[in-house]
Amino acid sequence: MSREQQVLDRIERIRRRKPVIREELITLAHGAGGKATQTLIEAVFLEAFRNPLLAPLDDGALLRIEDGQLAFTTDSYVVSPLFFPGGDIGDLAVNGTVNDLAMCGARPAHLSAGFILEEGFPVADLRRITDSMAAAAAAAEVTIVTGDTKVVQRGKADGCYITTAGVGLVEQPVTLSAARARPGDAVIVSGPIGEHGAAIMLARGDFDIEAPITSDTAPLHGIVSELLKALPQHVRALRDATRGGVATVLNEVARASEVAVVLREDQIPVRPEVTGVCELLGLDPLYVACEGRFVAVVDGEHAGQALETLRSHPLGADAAIVGTVADAPAGLVLLRTAFGGTRVVDVLVGDPLPRIC
Amino acid sequence: MSREQQVLDRIERIRRRKPVIREELITLAHGAGGKATQTLIEAVFLEAFRNPLLAPLDDGALLRIEDGQLAFTTDSYVVSPLFFPGGDIGDLAVNGTVNDLAMCGARPAHLSAGFILEEGFPVADLRRITDSMAAAAAAAEVTIVTGDTKVVQRGKADGCYITTAGVGLVEQPVTLSAARARPGDAVIVSGPIGEHGAAIMLARGDFDIEAPITSDTAPLHGIVSELLKALPQHVRALRDATRGGVATVLNEVARASEVAVVLREDQIPVRPEVTGVCELLGLDPLYVACEGRFVAVVDGEHAGQALETLRSHPLGADAAIVGTVADAPAGLVLLRTAFGGTRVVDVLVGDPLPRIC
Repeated sequence: MSREQQVLDRIERIRRRKPVIREELITLAHGAGGKATQTLIEAVFLEAFRNPLLAPLDDGALLRIEDGQLAFTTDSYVVSPLFFPGGDIGDLAVNGTVNDLAMCGARPAHLSAGFILEEGFPVADLRRITDSMAAAAAAAEVTIVTGDTKVVQRGKADGCYITTAGVGLVEQPVTLSAARARPGDAVIVSGPIGEHGAAIMLARGDFDIEAPITSDTAPLHGIVSELLKALPQHVRALRDATRGGVATVLNEVARASEVAVVLREDQIPVRPEVTGVCELLGLDPLYVACEGRFVAVVDGEHAGQALETLRSHPLGADAAIVGTVADAPAGLVLLRTAFGGTRVVDVLVGDPLPRIC
Repeated sequence: MSREQQVLDRIERIRRRKPVIREELITLAHGAGGKATQTLIEAVFLEAFRNPLLAPLDDGALLRIEDGQLAFTTDSYVVSPLFFPGGDIGDLAVNGTVNDLAMCGARPAHLSAGFILEEGFPVADLRRITDSMAAAAAAAEVTIVTGDTKVVQRGKADGCYITTAGVGLVEQPVTLSAARARPGDAVIVSGPIGEHGAAIMLARGDFDIEAPITSDTAPLHGIVSELLKALPQHVRALRDATRGGVATVLNEVARASEVAVVLREDQIPVRPEVTGVCELLGLDPLYVACEGRFVAVVDGEHAGQALETLRSHPLGADAAIVGTVADAPAGLVLLRTAFGGTRVVDVLVGDPLPRIC
């Protein structure tokens, strides 16, 4: 019997068996590797992520690959709260790793998922999370092919932490790096910034503020692929503006490329609700995390074409050129304010927004 | 300038800069993505794991691969205590992922590492862990090429959790699967069992027992490669006997292959200290985790050659044939006891040894 046939048979057997998880809360036994772990894997993870590569449940997944460059990345997710307007830890974990692969110029292909669960975590919440991961994976055209579950005692975690890793194939001959920005390049953001961070802050309910802000969590590989197809030779660097926001990403670029980045405050797209919340909380939107926006550094001569390409994609409708790269002062990000002044946009010090992702 | 040259230059610049981490304890700022995160990454992670693929610190690492099969795996580590006789969470996390790749018949190549740190975790402990990871990676000839760090508030984790993922290349034309065991096959364990679990239990200090037991944590790709080279066509399944121990692994094989596994109690290698501790704690060594032992199911006619090959490797000196595969009762593991009786070795129910890995 071929391996494929074995796999299909196994899926069929598992399907027939219809494993049922009887407990309503996660127990230490679910992390022990025995009967309870097996049931959890089959009733929750395999049920949600069903695909032929995952189904054998061996120690790892075997992927057939072709000659080329493979991108490999990982991110741990500890967002609090786990569920928030516009998403949850599950789609965040999938989109985050999909986006890191996209930022390398790769087509995301396969993901792993490691769960650290707290004893007492509701199984219904876990199902909600895995359903959301499955939907995000389907939307991003990736499969979750291998995973692991650990359970720690009550009080030793905060419900659920997820670490995803991903592999993707670099199909286009591009070289992207934060170290490749040059004077004259344009800096583009793919849409309004700060929505994810603002949504999380509001979802915590620590402030008596209500505003219609939802997380911008989204898979960016599609829009990035369009950009790289349109301008294979003229995109220098791509970074998704997550923790630390656009300011942090641009500081990395300025530092790695030993250039200055000069932003124009009045060009930076921020929705009025986000501006309002940031003002109330004393935050600068430039430092607030996005989970579905990226920064592109593009050859200045092709900035218009890049912008047009981004804007023709649904996730880039509000893309904007927000600044330029200059040769000095090397390593710094400057902001030309709406009032004509200039200030340094420094690297983030401290953590005004812990556990945003 | 070529990308390689850029990378080397960047390493050189970083080396010259000698980033210093001033805090003695991890703070939330170390997980915020800003200045403190950057310093932590450069002073601790890059310092320990230094390699050209990691050095660019982009969103992912780019790996050059050749046509073939790639194995991809992940594991989260939540072992308590973090440091124990024979190892720590760091080498455990590296060896564990190396071993999962080896069990797929792959040569481990590159690892990712996601850290979830608790606010207040000592930086010195983190360094001890990363040094240990670096040493384990060097021993296993893998590089840690990408990673992530999150920090959660005090009380929301237990010091340090690590999730590693790994990719490896399947270089030998072998098909390994828990579903491939057949009646007549031999079951071999690569060495004495239960040492890792017993070492962790003692390290917790909950029991007033002293015994010279150290974890068996070790990278198994070398010994596995020897076995597959010697018997490319006759190895059916390989599993490292971690959580749930040998009993759990063999139940997976029995179930996936729809065969019976018949063990001979008097052939199972267990060191007397481990037997002693297990008796005192009321544990069965068959369920106690190893982190440097594996189970091989091998064509019965080649069992002798397999054993010889394993025994000629330092990590397999005490390998033993511990049982055979039969056709019935399908799905069960039986133990012929030293007294001539037979009992079913069931799947682990509950968790007698939480957070062993």
